Amino acid sequence: MADAGKLDFLFNPRSIAVVGATDSKGKLSSIIMASLENAGFKGKIYPVNPKHNIVRGRRCFPDIKAIEEDVDLAVIAVSSLTAVEVIRGAAGLVKGAIVIGGGFSETGFNGALLEAELKELSAKSGIRIVGPNCMGIYDTVSSVDTFFIPRERAKRPGPGRVSVLSQSGSFALIAMEEFASEGIGVARVVSYGNKADVDEADCLDFLAEDSSTGAVLLYIEGISDGRKFVESATECAKKKPVIALKAGRYSAGGGAARSHTGAMAGRYELYRAAFKKAGVIEISGYEEFIDAGRVFSRFSKAPGKRVVIITDGGGIGVSMADECAARGLIVAQLSGEKVEKLKKTFPGYFTVSNPLDLTGSATDEWYGDALRETLSGDDFDIAIVAALWGPPALTDELPAILAETAKKSGKPVIICSPGGEYAKTKKRLFEELGLPVFSTPEGAVRAAAALSKSGKWIR
Amino acid sequence: MADAGKLDFLFNPRSIAVVGATDSKGKLSSIIMASLENAGFKGKIYPVNPKHNIVRGRRCFPDIKAIEEDVDLAVIAVSSLTAVEVIRGAAGLVKGAIVIGGGFSETGFNGALLEAELKELSAKSGIRIVGPNCMGIYDTVSSVDTFFIPRERAKRPGPGRVSVLSQSGSFALIAMEEFASEGIGVARVVSYGNKADVDEADCLDFLAEDSSTGAVLLYIEGISDGRKFVESATECAKKKPVIALKAGRYSAGGGAARSHTGAMAGRYELYRAAFKKAGVIEISGYEEFIDAGRVFSRFSKAPGKRVVIITDGGGIGVSMADECAARGLIVAQLSGEKVEKLKKTFPGYFTVSNPLDLTGSATDEWYGDALRETLSGDDFDIAIVAALWGPPALTDELPAILAETAKKSGKPVIICSPGGEYAKTKKRLFEELGLPVFSTPEGAVRAAAALSKSGKWIR
Repeated sequence: MADAGKLDFLFNPRSIAVVGATDSKGKLSSIIMASLENAGFKGKIYPVNPKHNIVRGRRCFPDIKAIEEDVDLAVIAVSSLTAVEVIRGAAGLVKGAIVIGGGFSETGFNGALLEAELKELSAKSGIRIVGPNCMGIYDTVSSVDTFFIPRERAKRPGPGRVSVLSQSGSFALIAMEEFASEGIGVARVVSYGNKADVDEADCLDFLAEDSSTGAVLLYIEGISDGRKFVESATECAKKKPVIALKAGRYSAGGGAARSHTGAMAGRYELYRAAFKKAGVIEISGYEEFIDAGRVFSRFSKAPGKRVVIITDGGGIGVSMADECAARGLIVAQLSGEKVEKLKKTFPGYFTVSNPLDLTGSATDEWYGDALRETLSGDDFDIAIVAALWGPPALTDELPAILAETAKKSGKPVIICSPGGEYAKTKKRLFEELGLPVFSTPEGAVRAAAALSKSGKWIR
Repeated sequence: MADAGKLDFLFNPRSIAVVGATDSKGKLSSIIMASLENAGFKGKIYPVNPKHNIVRGRRCFPDIKAIEEDVDLAVIAVSSLTAVEVIRGAAGLVKGAIVIGGGFSETGFNGALLEAELKELSAKSGIRIVGPNCMGIYDTVSSVDTFFIPRERAKRPGPGRVSVLSQSGSFALIAMEEFASEGIGVARVVSYGNKADVDEADCLDFLAEDSSTGAVLLYIEGISDGRKFVESATECAKKKPVIALKAGRYSAGGGAARSHTGAMAGRYELYRAAFKKAGVIEISGYEEFIDAGRVFSRFSKAPGKRVVIITDGGGIGVSMADECAARGLIVAQLSGEKVEKLKKTFPGYFTVSNPLDLTGSATDEWYGDALRETLSGDDFDIAIVAALWGPPALTDELPAILAETAKKSGKPVIICSPGGEYAKTKKRLFEELGLPVFSTPEGAVRAAAALSKSGKWIR
């Protein structure tokens, strides 16, 4: 394992130089300056551009050397040729750099030569480089934001416990937007692009030790140093859930991944084996990525894979049971003892089974009783509660009753609230009480499946 | 094939009696009266209840006989025992009845006896019965709504070309809510519950001939007469896409389905074979059900399964290519001729391939050019366009350019617009122009897969 402290310049910088800074609206460097300011970065920001004296009201320096102060991080938003020259001139002046722009290995042979030069400069000078061809960092702990899409186009998520590592900048950005609009917070997001130097393993080393990070989500197109990855992922996964999406699994996608970030997509089977060895939870696409963000921002693991399903809509219960079976979760029958107890609680016409259908006559109290009774003892590891809001007796007290019962049980409880606007309004009530809420039966089950896999790894 | 006209009482009733009608707030019958009125039903509504003289300002009749006018449809919202007596007394007075309430075969032996009696009465009297244990009808063609969940809790969808048949009332309701909030319209929705008489095959016979219905979505827990289903589904699927979700596929879910609507879930393999034989497109859950609603409300079929993917976010393109491969769609390479043409259109640093990544420099025109060129000729059957709104050059003109190009191509074009609030705002622009828009890469690909399967069946 590498020394995690080495990436402090990236995750906790005290000063940032923005190379290429300008006031020209729409330019990447201009948006990055705005992003940094909007994020509320507390350290020093130094615009660097020989063409300007002032940028966004700040003194602008002709080059990094002219700053004459410690610079932890240089964000370099200039063309590929210029970026290489900036790095060459920055030796001894900065600890690390994010090379934002493209024009490197993802564009072909000439770009690959430039990237090799970047790599060599990094090794010689000791400057750690993130990128090129990336978005850089969005970090709610250090208040850093180098993403070059303006906030009015892409809302940023608030603080949270999930950190994201992504080879694709657009994937990271879209996930961040979705998290933001769904109220899911993040700790640190790194878009590392072509990873001429800093790679996912380096970041995992840092995040493993990072007290702000409760879980790590990875979007991977290709890994160049498999051994290093497995080592770092193994250490991190011992401490917190590590969840990975391997994109470019099939030949068609593989071809796309290659041109996209200049990485060979690699043979998928090798990745699966590596994930398994390292205790990384594999997920298969964007939807599962968002699901994982939602559930791991609330829970870290489940003790096992036995699921109880409680609902007031039979069809949704059946659909969830199907999806559980398809994903290897066990919708076990209720014990004779529990059936007897629940039969006393509920009307005689109820079928007391798993899924437990509270029907259109459901009340807040029935939901509470059902959850308390089924999660008591050691029969179940996870509960999925699908509350449809049709039954007239259900009130806004339901979320508090379920949240309290869930908390007392000490087990993860996942809420499914499908439907339209009424359901979406009620969703917030659950979220405010700390319960993860999914809009589809499949989403809730995918989250339960990921949690149960997490339980296998983290002690 | 049964005589489709037989179900006219259900899909085009001229008069409806609501048995059990009352002004008591919260009672099913009271909500059903309100639902009918809110739907704008143009025919006559007769409240029936010996306890009242006036209900909702209308003359209330002590029984159906007292109405002394033709009654096409009786909606019966009383207890199970009373419902049987109402049917017994309605012989010769009504053409059909919807028995809303539960308390029949789904509750055990005694209920099953009652249901058998209902069945016998139906056969003897010729009264066609929908239900029991169902929500009945929501129909934008005939303006009928017997769903007993008030509109403030469950918004109803507007008019559209997709019809829904569902054994589960709550599943139908949730799907309707989701359709409503997503701007997806429906023609006819039938929740048929325990199907003592009218079943999915009867409804398929009607919908096959129904000019208002462009596609049929089914939620099935169990089919009792497989031969009848295959016959009816085969005829319907020759004319329009028939898409089915079989719930209770696995033993756990199977158990739940049994208690839920009193139907044996049956052996899943038999269903698969039946669907295949009939040309029914099988889908696997709620998410695919909603996806199908969205795409089949715009398109009926695709000529094949060769997909071109156009995007400005490499990672999303790779994810979609993966999902295409997983679902049997072909993300074929671009022909040499097309590559040459596109290379002239786009900057030299572009990798012209499939997926085609227009990068962060994307413009409206590039999107238009890419779609036009790739869909020209016979190389591709479907296009998926994933427009991420990060690139600063993209404007609100993009949807119109894509819609026009799509229309000229004569091929289905599916839009993917993932992300947060900004993307959701832009989504509407595409929808207004008649393009189906999906919020996740997987959703767009699932829709493309369903469309390509449809192409196999409909000529």
